[in-house]
Amino acid sequence: MYQTVSIFEGGGYLQTKGQETRNHILKESRRLFTLQGFNNTSISEIIAATGVKKGNLYYHFSSKEELGLAVLLDVRHEFLGVLERSMVGSSAVERILHSCNSIMALMEETDFVGGCLFGNTALEMIDLSSSFGQVVRDVFSHWINLIEQEIRRDIGDEGNGKNLSPETLAIAVVAILEGGIMLSRLYQNKKSLDACIRSIEGLVGS
Amino acid sequence: MYQTVSIFEGGGYLQTKGQETRNHILKESRRLFTLQGFNNTSISEIIAATGVKKGNLYYHFSSKEELGLAVLLDVRHEFLGVLERSMVGSSAVERILHSCNSIMALMEETDFVGGCLFGNTALEMIDLSSSFGQVVRDVFSHWINLIEQEIRRDIGDEGNGKNLSPETLAIAVVAILEGGIMLSRLYQNKKSLDACIRSIEGLVGS
Repeated sequence: MYQTVSIFEGGGYLQTKGQETRNHILKESRRLFTLQGFNNTSISEIIAATGVKKGNLYYHFSSKEELGLAVLLDVRHEFLGVLERSMVGSSAVERILHSCNSIMALMEETDFVGGCLFGNTALEMIDLSSSFGQVVRDVFSHWINLIEQEIRRDIGDEGNGKNLSPETLAIAVVAILEGGIMLSRLYQNKKSLDACIRSIEGLVGS
Repeated sequence: MYQTVSIFEGGGYLQTKGQETRNHILKESRRLFTLQGFNNTSISEIIAATGVKKGNLYYHFSSKEELGLAVLLDVRHEFLGVLERSMVGSSAVERILHSCNSIMALMEETDFVGGCLFGNTALEMIDLSSSFGQVVRDVFSHWINLIEQEIRRDIGDEGNGKNLSPETLAIAVVAILEGGIMLSRLYQNKKSLDACIRSIEGLVGS
């Protein structure tokens, strides 16, 4: 049920009713956008899902675009936090695989329904919205840079024995993962993403 | 301009006006769906782009879903043809890379605007439409099987030295390509897809 006031146990502060409404709209919109896409989600559906009145919704977000951007920024913050915390292990391969498995766990939580909001957004509307595109590009650049640094720390600037530079490997790792998430979502199983993560081990570890 | 009658030089047969209208609608809808997504393209836009009257459009396709499905089936036919013709070379790695480069060339023709219609469709609406999902799953299964057979022909059932089976490698190849197409579209450059194709060489050739 929708509560009007709550105490965030983690943060230990009292949310105002306005803040809570805003967060509630963000959470439900994120669920709908991830599940069925941004373009395919109407403001009416968001109103129905949140129980928030139309005027109140527009008080917090002046347009569907503004709401979409706020959702992306919210998920970006969360995802980059997960990424940085997930780089655990004694070698680049271990840290990258640990990180991949953390992402796999996130996907499994929702049975691969929805997939990666950034990948979906990238493919759904990158040619349409420059502000959305900027956020999605930022996320992928940050992710690729993080993996590139990990690889560089372990195997140096030269890359692996296959003449693949740390940057090339990092781009490939992110591409395999995104492709794997897409295939796992398509077939509704973990087999594809699993195969992709094992291939990342083969690629980066070689 | 929209011509009412034309002779297909390749096929050498005269199209009826009805067939030509149908093909014209398919071609324009495909362009719009690829560029801006299925959900984000309205019937009104298709009518404006084709110059076909609403009643005539509905005579050929009873709904936007039916039109979307016809576009996917059309592109499937074309794409599987490109795939099979592109497997040229004296080893699995050569054939797979030649095929990847053919796909890269297709993407470059449009400056990476639009990307892969199957990938876009997979991410945009796989959780929504079962008939669309079936076509997209068919295309990816066919693609993965084709690459798997190539790898099996060259390196046998055991896979490569990294304990990656032909099926695992084939899934990874398709995932890297799809992820690479997504990243190249996102950044509007060929660098990402290029890095991905070089990584495929490192992965399958190892």
